[in-house]
Amino acid sequence: MLSYRTNKPRIIVTTGDPAGIGPEIISGAIAKDEIASLGLFIVVGGKKIFESVLPSRVQKNISFHTLQEALTLGDFRDGMIHMVDPEVSPGDITFGKPSAEASRFALACLEASVKLIKALPADVPKAIVTAPVNKGGIASISPGFKGHTEYFQEAFASEMITMALVGRHLSVIPVTRHIPICSVARALNEEVVFKAIKQVAEYRRVISGMDEPVIGVCGLNPHCGENGKIGDEEIKIIKPAIDRALKIYSKIKGPIPADTVFYQAMKKEINIVIAMYHDQGLAPFKMVDFDSGVNMTLGLGCVRTSPDHGTAYDIAGKGIASSRSMEEAIKLAADRAHAG
Amino acid sequence: MLSYRTNKPRIIVTTGDPAGIGPEIISGAIAKDEIASLGLFIVVGGKKIFESVLPSRVQKNISFHTLQEALTLGDFRDGMIHMVDPEVSPGDITFGKPSAEASRFALACLEASVKLIKALPADVPKAIVTAPVNKGGIASISPGFKGHTEYFQEAFASEMITMALVGRHLSVIPVTRHIPICSVARALNEEVVFKAIKQVAEYRRVISGMDEPVIGVCGLNPHCGENGKIGDEEIKIIKPAIDRALKIYSKIKGPIPADTVFYQAMKKEINIVIAMYHDQGLAPFKMVDFDSGVNMTLGLGCVRTSPDHGTAYDIAGKGIASSRSMEEAIKLAADRAHAG
Repeated sequence: MLSYRTNKPRIIVTTGDPAGIGPEIISGAIAKDEIASLGLFIVVGGKKIFESVLPSRVQKNISFHTLQEALTLGDFRDGMIHMVDPEVSPGDITFGKPSAEASRFALACLEASVKLIKALPADVPKAIVTAPVNKGGIASISPGFKGHTEYFQEAFASEMITMALVGRHLSVIPVTRHIPICSVARALNEEVVFKAIKQVAEYRRVISGMDEPVIGVCGLNPHCGENGKIGDEEIKIIKPAIDRALKIYSKIKGPIPADTVFYQAMKKEINIVIAMYHDQGLAPFKMVDFDSGVNMTLGLGCVRTSPDHGTAYDIAGKGIASSRSMEEAIKLAADRAHAG
Repeated sequence: MLSYRTNKPRIIVTTGDPAGIGPEIISGAIAKDEIASLGLFIVVGGKKIFESVLPSRVQKNISFHTLQEALTLGDFRDGMIHMVDPEVSPGDITFGKPSAEASRFALACLEASVKLIKALPADVPKAIVTAPVNKGGIASISPGFKGHTEYFQEAFASEMITMALVGRHLSVIPVTRHIPICSVARALNEEVVFKAIKQVAEYRRVISGMDEPVIGVCGLNPHCGENGKIGDEEIKIIKPAIDRALKIYSKIKGPIPADTVFYQAMKKEINIVIAMYHDQGLAPFKMVDFDSGVNMTLGLGCVRTSPDHGTAYDIAGKGIASSRSMEEAIKLAADRAHAG
């Protein structure tokens, strides 16, 4: 029987697109002692990718493994950063240049991270942190790929996942995501809104880090529709959904007009905001948490976080990308790894 | 010929609903020397309403007039607050109690303010500051009343007006206002968006206080539609409208995703944000400028500002309402009164 010597959370970090800023922001983050000490790191990306970006003083703390070795290792040594090579070679990657090879490698890293997570015992605290991928690039070699969230949802056979944006000022969950504004109203019904609130209520501790956060649910229309004068979704859909959810958890308020709820959230009267659509939640969120914002996926069986930015090909490999958002993603993953 | 002895801006302040917090926030604001010194104040609301709320040390600086006196006065004495009685008696007003009498009086104050503004020579700097009214209450005695903005638009025969929200952090103009989310997309067309941008460009100095502010125009859909994948209004409507407006004024950027433009605005890379709909602009605005936010109407021939809150019947007459938002409205009105 394998023994697990440390109760530190296992943080599986995926490189993302190896031609993007992933490798350097991961290196920048784990080079900091206050980050490296947060967990036992297993970085999925491999020797070849990281050799060029790892600061020399960090290199001595790295141990390299093949995926097969990592899967049979049972435990990882505390105090080391474990670097795992996926089963696909990165080939010749040039920073800043998207390529099919880079996308194939990024996808292999995701596959490897899922295998690693599944190989860990259920009671070991664990989380996945993903660096950005080129969605279009992966979709062109693996049709149907929509993004990390959907990939993991399928890989972990999750019935329903919730995407939360967690920052220093706000925590926001959009009920609908990447759909046109003209489709938002008809994408909402009582069941959809209820399920979203229910899942947020269930994961409230993971999202907020608090036992009893106050959840504020946005209305859809200006001024919450002014009693049906400017749209009736608040009356027909959102209020009934909140009433049902209140039977599960009592600290849910709403519907609250979007131009009020974020002000209340800034004053900490509301701790988690559920928005009805993408920009309703993300415009306020990114305004105040652009640099510290972390994307968190819930419902996978383990927490997954990611920095809230893209591959940034234009600056990749130049050593100028800030690792701050990656550090925030790692901190949040480590803090919530026990919560699952 | 009448002579106008001071070039200080004439600030016409309307009481709003006399049973709301209007009288006390006006009194609180003009009791402060730094506010009273900003212009020559003509408060339309009358003796009976203000007697109970004016601090005694201010009372000696007040001169009371009937509307007829005020209209024939020609000039007002500098250093005094001029209080004008509209032609309708306030009757028995009880603070905190909406009534037809109160609404009739509030409407009479608006009518009087229009007469006063029209009686002032064109070259005298002037502005209107309005305290909140009970829209429903006025509509029930004057059918068709929708709010200050529409009232003044008709009274001044303005072809097109723009509502701007001006705060310490942000200046935001929504292209569409109080309509349901399901109607937003079809309310937009190139002409509507172009006219909104054009008017903002023309009034850019009044809105921003800067000569050459950068105007940022929001997209409608998440991520600006990702090249048509999540809605095509950016391609078909917003971009063509911006291109036309760029011929009038060059510092217009967009379409910019809503989850980026407000972050840029907070960093002062964008000085004025044009939002496509109410919550897209107002949720971020009120989050950071709830207390200092001022509503500004442009296109009337003179600037009109108002605090960004309602009648607050629940606290009216108790002396606990904060006059801060009214002070901000007066400051902005005084500062932009020369700009028209």
